[in-house]
Amino acid sequence: MHIRLTLPFYIYPFHFFRGSKMVKIPKSHPRYWSLLYREKIIRGMEEGITAKAGLIAHGRGEAFDYLIGERTIPPAEEAMKVAVAKLLLANHPVISVNGNVAALVPRETVELAKVTRAKLEVNLFYRTEERVKKIAEVLKKTGAKEVLGLNPTKRIPGLESERGKVEEDGIWKADVVLVPLEDGDRTEALVRMGKFVITVDLNPLSRSARMANVTIVDNIIRAYPRMIELAKEMRDYSREELEEIVNNYDNNKILSEVLLHIRRRLEELAKEGIWRKEKI
Amino acid sequence: MHIRLTLPFYIYPFHFFRGSKMVKIPKSHPRYWSLLYREKIIRGMEEGITAKAGLIAHGRGEAFDYLIGERTIPPAEEAMKVAVAKLLLANHPVISVNGNVAALVPRETVELAKVTRAKLEVNLFYRTEERVKKIAEVLKKTGAKEVLGLNPTKRIPGLESERGKVEEDGIWKADVVLVPLEDGDRTEALVRMGKFVITVDLNPLSRSARMANVTIVDNIIRAYPRMIELAKEMRDYSREELEEIVNNYDNNKILSEVLLHIRRRLEELAKEGIWRKEKI
Repeated sequence: MHIRLTLPFYIYPFHFFRGSKMVKIPKSHPRYWSLLYREKIIRGMEEGITAKAGLIAHGRGEAFDYLIGERTIPPAEEAMKVAVAKLLLANHPVISVNGNVAALVPRETVELAKVTRAKLEVNLFYRTEERVKKIAEVLKKTGAKEVLGLNPTKRIPGLESERGKVEEDGIWKADVVLVPLEDGDRTEALVRMGKFVITVDLNPLSRSARMANVTIVDNIIRAYPRMIELAKEMRDYSREELEEIVNNYDNNKILSEVLLHIRRRLEELAKEGIWRKEKI
Repeated sequence: MHIRLTLPFYIYPFHFFRGSKMVKIPKSHPRYWSLLYREKIIRGMEEGITAKAGLIAHGRGEAFDYLIGERTIPPAEEAMKVAVAKLLLANHPVISVNGNVAALVPRETVELAKVTRAKLEVNLFYRTEERVKKIAEVLKKTGAKEVLGLNPTKRIPGLESERGKVEEDGIWKADVVLVPLEDGDRTEALVRMGKFVITVDLNPLSRSARMANVTIVDNIIRAYPRMIELAKEMRDYSREELEEIVNNYDNNKILSEVLLHIRRRLEELAKEGIWRKEKI
């Protein structure tokens, strides 16, 4: 018997639907998490939260996550510590939310904003008022008190009009912005505005990864829960301790370490000799 | 002024639509081809040709294509030659078509079938009769005389019922099958049936890439046009010449060469020092 529930997508994480069929994927499945979040992104699109191009972007992320090994690697952990320290030190931290983020980690986004006392702002590449509203609703349903992005009066210089819209009390006056799963143009424009930009991006070679001040090369589904843990731990640190963590950081070094990690992974995967034994 | 044309997606390749806006991307844009085909896949989904999960798969392909360098590399060229030789030698060659293939290279698919005298069969992971019909229509509109897949009476052993459906006169009795952009389960099942399986897959580590007899690690938008050229050239070869090309081939070696190429690319990209010069 196949039952199709009609709850919103972020309620039931352990069932998969295809057409009218419900498929339960066991947690033991080697690609369980990847399949689960693939389904969440598709559901996000069906509900008007994620853009169509967001699905393609998710696929690119999947490929890089596979190359990384689908786990948090040391250079990502180091970048996360610095990111959290910087958010805690900020006068006006803002966490940007787009359609993919809202589909994948709505609860974690809200919690991360709470523990770092950051504001939340919806900021879309393919901005439509409807999508901004839907994403704001998702965040409010999962516990956010305030969500910016609905009343943008300012524009980020150098971006087309729709894409550049931001709220004065949000990204416009932020000193530190976390812009996860973001495109290179926006990241670069924010850096040019003098902001300290943190990104989460599985592709260490993307323009976004290269332009940001801190690049967390990790899957956001692992990064946000870990950053919440770190923030809870680090919010008792003194300003001096936090500043020391930030001052010792070199993003270029971190990105190089990620590339070396991927290179090693490719070698290992190639050595495993997992292909067909016989010749044709 | 923004005009939205209502022609089918495969007619106007050089314009991009976003909502009600028409954006013309100049051919000089460094990522022109990638953006163009991204748009084609989205349009394919909007027209009911491509599955939603097909968009995510396209994104995975984009990531690997980026790592390869978005060009046809020598091991792919070698694999293509063998693939074409084998198709020309076959008694009953079949080219399988899914939603992504139909969105990206409908004309090329039809032409490749013509020059290799192969049959075309629509074969979907997420099979619905509607989607099979739509894809068959696209192929017929672009010149195919016969498209199989609408009347499957046989099943590939080892696949779930819907996914395993094939036509008796098509994949069922084929000796050589080209199954591009295919999932590992199907590739493996076809190999188990004793068929000679050729795949086009940008991920050299995928199960499909590893299970196939010949794996073309290239973007299908470059591979199919090149295979058409090769087929036109090679159809005058003698059987002995074609057999020699096939007999000298080692798919494991080709896949290893692809991995080495990607490893070198990563090193080069890391060395280019393309990231921000300043420390934070």
